[in-house]
Amino acid sequence: MKIYKYPDKKGWSGIIQRPMTDYSALEKSVKKILQKIKEKGDKAVRKFSKEFDGVDLKNLQVTEKEINKASTLVADDLKQAIQQAKDNIQRFHLAQKEEIKKIETMPGVICWRKSKGIEKAGLYIPGGSAPLFSTVLMLAVPAQIAGCKEIILCTPPSKDGDINPAILYAAQLCGVTKIFKAGGVQAIGAMAYGTESIPKVFKIFGPGNQYVTLAKQVIQQQGVAIDMPAGPSEVLVIADDTAFPEFVAADLLSQAEHGGDSQVILLTISETFAEKVNNAISKQVKDLPRKHIAEKALKNSKTVICKTIDEAIELSDLYAPEHLILACNNAEEAATKINTAGSVFIGNYSPESAGDYASGTNHTLPTNGYAAMYSGVSVDSFVKKITYQQLTKEGLQNIGNTVMTMAAAEGLDAHKNAVAIRLKN
Amino acid sequence: MKIYKYPDKKGWSGIIQRPMTDYSALEKSVKKILQKIKEKGDKAVRKFSKEFDGVDLKNLQVTEKEINKASTLVADDLKQAIQQAKDNIQRFHLAQKEEIKKIETMPGVICWRKSKGIEKAGLYIPGGSAPLFSTVLMLAVPAQIAGCKEIILCTPPSKDGDINPAILYAAQLCGVTKIFKAGGVQAIGAMAYGTESIPKVFKIFGPGNQYVTLAKQVIQQQGVAIDMPAGPSEVLVIADDTAFPEFVAADLLSQAEHGGDSQVILLTISETFAEKVNNAISKQVKDLPRKHIAEKALKNSKTVICKTIDEAIELSDLYAPEHLILACNNAEEAATKINTAGSVFIGNYSPESAGDYASGTNHTLPTNGYAAMYSGVSVDSFVKKITYQQLTKEGLQNIGNTVMTMAAAEGLDAHKNAVAIRLKN
Repeated sequence: MKIYKYPDKKGWSGIIQRPMTDYSALEKSVKKILQKIKEKGDKAVRKFSKEFDGVDLKNLQVTEKEINKASTLVADDLKQAIQQAKDNIQRFHLAQKEEIKKIETMPGVICWRKSKGIEKAGLYIPGGSAPLFSTVLMLAVPAQIAGCKEIILCTPPSKDGDINPAILYAAQLCGVTKIFKAGGVQAIGAMAYGTESIPKVFKIFGPGNQYVTLAKQVIQQQGVAIDMPAGPSEVLVIADDTAFPEFVAADLLSQAEHGGDSQVILLTISETFAEKVNNAISKQVKDLPRKHIAEKALKNSKTVICKTIDEAIELSDLYAPEHLILACNNAEEAATKINTAGSVFIGNYSPESAGDYASGTNHTLPTNGYAAMYSGVSVDSFVKKITYQQLTKEGLQNIGNTVMTMAAAEGLDAHKNAVAIRLKN
Repeated sequence: MKIYKYPDKKGWSGIIQRPMTDYSALEKSVKKILQKIKEKGDKAVRKFSKEFDGVDLKNLQVTEKEINKASTLVADDLKQAIQQAKDNIQRFHLAQKEEIKKIETMPGVICWRKSKGIEKAGLYIPGGSAPLFSTVLMLAVPAQIAGCKEIILCTPPSKDGDINPAILYAAQLCGVTKIFKAGGVQAIGAMAYGTESIPKVFKIFGPGNQYVTLAKQVIQQQGVAIDMPAGPSEVLVIADDTAFPEFVAADLLSQAEHGGDSQVILLTISETFAEKVNNAISKQVKDLPRKHIAEKALKNSKTVICKTIDEAIELSDLYAPEHLILACNNAEEAATKINTAGSVFIGNYSPESAGDYASGTNHTLPTNGYAAMYSGVSVDSFVKKITYQQLTKEGLQNIGNTVMTMAAAEGLDAHKNAVAIRLKN
């Protein structure tokens, strides 16, 4: 990790720079694939699955039989773990349900809002090096709480046409209604436009590689909503001498192993602590199966020695980290000072991996600086909030002049008439 | 209005078609303007203001003096009306503030979430035929409640470099921090990239013409958030013989006068009622100053005779109207059956214009079918919700195996280690 010692604020903008790759060159081919899916439906999905995933699929939809078989293939301890994680995620997300509050803004004028589940939600679960069944929980649990009627899931099959059993198990456990063997751009296109077997959805959720990310951007322009813009995963740790260097090293590595483009940042007020952490990283990284990925990520990573914890917090807010670990004295108080982050982990015993899997918070979070304006996935992400108003005759009499005066001033006489004609009555 | 009598469901997809115009041809010129703003800042903003608004601006920012002068130019009754509307909007939106709920998902594992105002919000208020000071209230009031630190507003000046006094008055009343004379694509670009005088913001809100809409789409791809995709305004009315034809006609016209591309739809179960409404429209439209706009909009508009109110509700949900007026028997009960709409107006004395100005609900709503997956603007739109978790030693012991088992199954050993190393300690 590159070390910056007591940089002055002029230098901060350089430090918070993320390693950016421009994928716009891929846009043309992504749009081409999407267009084919739109035109040819299932036929095109099969064609691209053969081309990209090397598998020739008869049926895109996963059968009852496959799902039942999957659950026999998942070890009991993993089933228990998945159940425990699901229970915690459910408990936390249930508290996000909004109850209806009727507000009488003035006598006879009653307004309220009600959340309704987005009727058709599409979840994308990438394949690749890790079978992300945890992401199935993070998306399907809030979707079910929100009351989405149709929750479909697309994930790429293996070369022999199978899907990781843990993914199928988690999906059926969390009320996913239909599962399809489709990956990459073709999956996003299928959910955006609908095919013979894959239903069109109103909003698409989930992580993916640069092709999937681009595809989501394109279909967003075409009127299908997406969860949030995506970018490489990242963690920022604020630590002082009250923290354990090995813990911090382990946290930084748990982020670094995600991908070569991940970024990990350590902000500390102690040079000796920074050294200890870097030594612990060198020790721990050796034994990691994903060593090479982690080492690549560490190349993008930074240690910054700050004058004070408050300065570290200021720098962190500017960076807007996806994950923020506070391993410093009075971590709880420090947490109250944070303005911008996706998810915050407080104290020495709150590792990021707890939130990645099972604490209950969602792990689908704004990265790449988007924490400045986007929230992580929650029940909110799966509902639309409808507003209602009901005026009594008296209510309209009370508010009438206000409405008519404003409408007239905006030159919208028909708006004025809609009130006037009622008051005349 | 075109009349459809008892169409069967096969015909519905045709009925819910909206008049669509493809503006993608404008994208190239929009991107060119944005690029110039990015490169040349204020200089480019001035250049395009001269070119498009025909005004040569020295200073882009509205001065204290101009704001004070404006408030002397607004009539007292309008000031009172604006104040009343602001109070109602504030009362309704204050109830959207989320209090912190700490959830112990399992012993020693405490999770919560906290809303923080998006630090820099940009509001765009279009110029043109109507000075939309009401939209200033609808955007600035929730921004202030959310706790946005910087709330800037851009709106195009008149040929003599002035801004409508009511817009300036509403802006200062609702805590807008800076106001700038800039319109169209150049305003969106300035807020997205920042210029010498106009600060860069994290999220841009507000209506606009097709150029503004396209510009917002483009900068969204570049990492600046926007409120929602835009489209022509629309209202759908569900009515039966218990409604007043003149009221319904007035409501349809109040939407039709917005723009030639607006759409108004009447669903009713009574042919005679439909006739009465259409007659009332012909009578009322004559006296409207914006007659020609309304008549153009009526050409896109439809009356559908349905078999039952429940069928009308089903058709309405499929259309996903921005505004929905329920002027039928048991309107309140009908409201509970609605799945998809932006804002719902219940009963004969709840005209759309009440919500457009002063009832308290927000008038920035999902149109063009987006009500199926987007919500109207609310306090939510101006915050990001940060999640927090704090685990005690015991908490980590309780959740540890779950996390380690799942991490191992996903092949993410460093995630597992982050827990193991702590439990070993």
